[in-house]
Amino acid sequence: MAVLALDLGGTKLASAVFSQDGNMRGKTMAHLRGRSGSEVGALISEQVHHAITQERHEEIEAIGISVPGIYHARTGTVWAPNIPGWTDYPLVEELTTRTGGLLVRVDSDRACSILGETWRGSAQGCRNAVFVAVGTGIGAGILVDGTVLRGHSDIAGATGWMALESCFRPEYAGCGCFEFHASGSGLAHRTREMLDEDPAYSGTLRSIPADDLTTEHVFAAALEGDPLATHVIARAITYWGMATANYVSLFDPEMIIFGGGVFGPAARFLDRIRQEAARWAQPISMRRVKLTCSALGPDAALYGAGRLALNAGNT
Amino acid sequence: MAVLALDLGGTKLASAVFSQDGNMRGKTMAHLRGRSGSEVGALISEQVHHAITQERHEEIEAIGISVPGIYHARTGTVWAPNIPGWTDYPLVEELTTRTGGLLVRVDSDRACSILGETWRGSAQGCRNAVFVAVGTGIGAGILVDGTVLRGHSDIAGATGWMALESCFRPEYAGCGCFEFHASGSGLAHRTREMLDEDPAYSGTLRSIPADDLTTEHVFAAALEGDPLATHVIARAITYWGMATANYVSLFDPEMIIFGGGVFGPAARFLDRIRQEAARWAQPISMRRVKLTCSALGPDAALYGAGRLALNAGNT
Repeated sequence: MAVLALDLGGTKLASAVFSQDGNMRGKTMAHLRGRSGSEVGALISEQVHHAITQERHEEIEAIGISVPGIYHARTGTVWAPNIPGWTDYPLVEELTTRTGGLLVRVDSDRACSILGETWRGSAQGCRNAVFVAVGTGIGAGILVDGTVLRGHSDIAGATGWMALESCFRPEYAGCGCFEFHASGSGLAHRTREMLDEDPAYSGTLRSIPADDLTTEHVFAAALEGDPLATHVIARAITYWGMATANYVSLFDPEMIIFGGGVFGPAARFLDRIRQEAARWAQPISMRRVKLTCSALGPDAALYGAGRLALNAGNT
Repeated sequence: MAVLALDLGGTKLASAVFSQDGNMRGKTMAHLRGRSGSEVGALISEQVHHAITQERHEEIEAIGISVPGIYHARTGTVWAPNIPGWTDYPLVEELTTRTGGLLVRVDSDRACSILGETWRGSAQGCRNAVFVAVGTGIGAGILVDGTVLRGHSDIAGATGWMALESCFRPEYAGCGCFEFHASGSGLAHRTREMLDEDPAYSGTLRSIPADDLTTEHVFAAALEGDPLATHVIARAITYWGMATANYVSLFDPEMIIFGGGVFGPAARFLDRIRQEAARWAQPISMRRVKLTCSALGPDAALYGAGRLALNAGNT
């Protein structure tokens, strides 16, 4: 048995075939190039058709798709804020029709990421684990006793909205306190703020036009001992540690996996994140939890989509 | 069919018989009076024996027990910090033996409270809900898709340890940041601190010896407009609101239920807690969640113990 996995992002669509034992092959990448609404649906159908044709010798029994937003399990529709027209997109119905009735399973990228990591990545065998994706934004895929936490409206895991400071800032209203302080865009934003606040600073970050400044610049400057970058990252470590502590105290997980573009370069701070978390968390759970980084990197959600499809084919 | 429910606290033991339809009868209360270790086990056995004898006309088919600590499901043992000698107490084995093999089910008071509320209290029919018990300490019973969240080591829901301020205070180390600021003992402690810091204050709280000061005094003073008490409660509302926001963003629950001794008098601040939470939380989940107070009050865990036993009897 084989399945087709797709990972839809805001700008591109990855696809690959997985065999039952979790081996991935034939990974391809297509770019959205400004497509919106049903054009994105059509691109997905093309990829599916292409893969099914390629795999003629072995039947594709199911399709799994990771989407960059929220999957509403009851209606089979998707809300994806970065794809114009996908406010309630009937992805399951459309793909089921276009493939002549193949099994189609969909879930959010954060749900797929934790599924992928427990199947073939860092968290293999775990039944209670949290995948924290720190990129432009922050989200979490949370596994509770072997099942991904969905919540009442399929929005569980919106951890970027976690309150970690009692003094409210109006900027939190658009993205959440944790995401404001400790996402990739948050780190860049805070660096720009500090450059404005500290005219005496004349380090390497001063020479970069504010609009071009990225987290890569901040991590690179910190590696060279730049004091402003070091301070920004130390603050982020505090928030990552507090968030970790809150997952530990609430969920008592076996493992917390850090992924997304920022982990990446922030992976080398895992020990400091653990130290920070240990100051805050329920101490017994804290001693037992393992912190690690994603083993699958940018493919975590693709693996998870494969797992979704295999689970569907097996039931 | 009938079951026997017991709710063991740090100082007393409540018991009652429940019928299948959730009607409670014959509630009794026994006091621990300094008992420890196996003496507490013996008291529980006595109560069970007494109830079974009383209920001669109708068979008791199962026993459910709520315990003030952690229940280790794999070993059937209990850790209860306020009962000397109960570090790993073999409650299930002991009671099963003493009752000649009756079905015995145990869980923590926070797990039992959310079970009780979903069965016969505020959260009937909910499959995703959080019960926050704010008393001397703070804990949470969390229902995820109809099942109580246990975690890897049965310690999930240790919400008193939630980090809600990035500036760490050494006092957090013993109880957790949220519990330090917003539990019953935290409120009393913060009031004493403010009395020390504000020698000019001459309100009603000044006349109470520091050791006698309780949350009841603080709530009563706030009702009369006392500025110090009003400030202490406003701070607590901020933390209760932030914690609520964090449950909303992480769990996307249908309902959050406030219980424990502090709710109680803090019940009248539910609207302000909601306003505070709405500043922080994922906005879609926030609009959909309902906040309410426990309908079962001090009996929530007893009802939950009854439900545990009925579930056991039905499987």
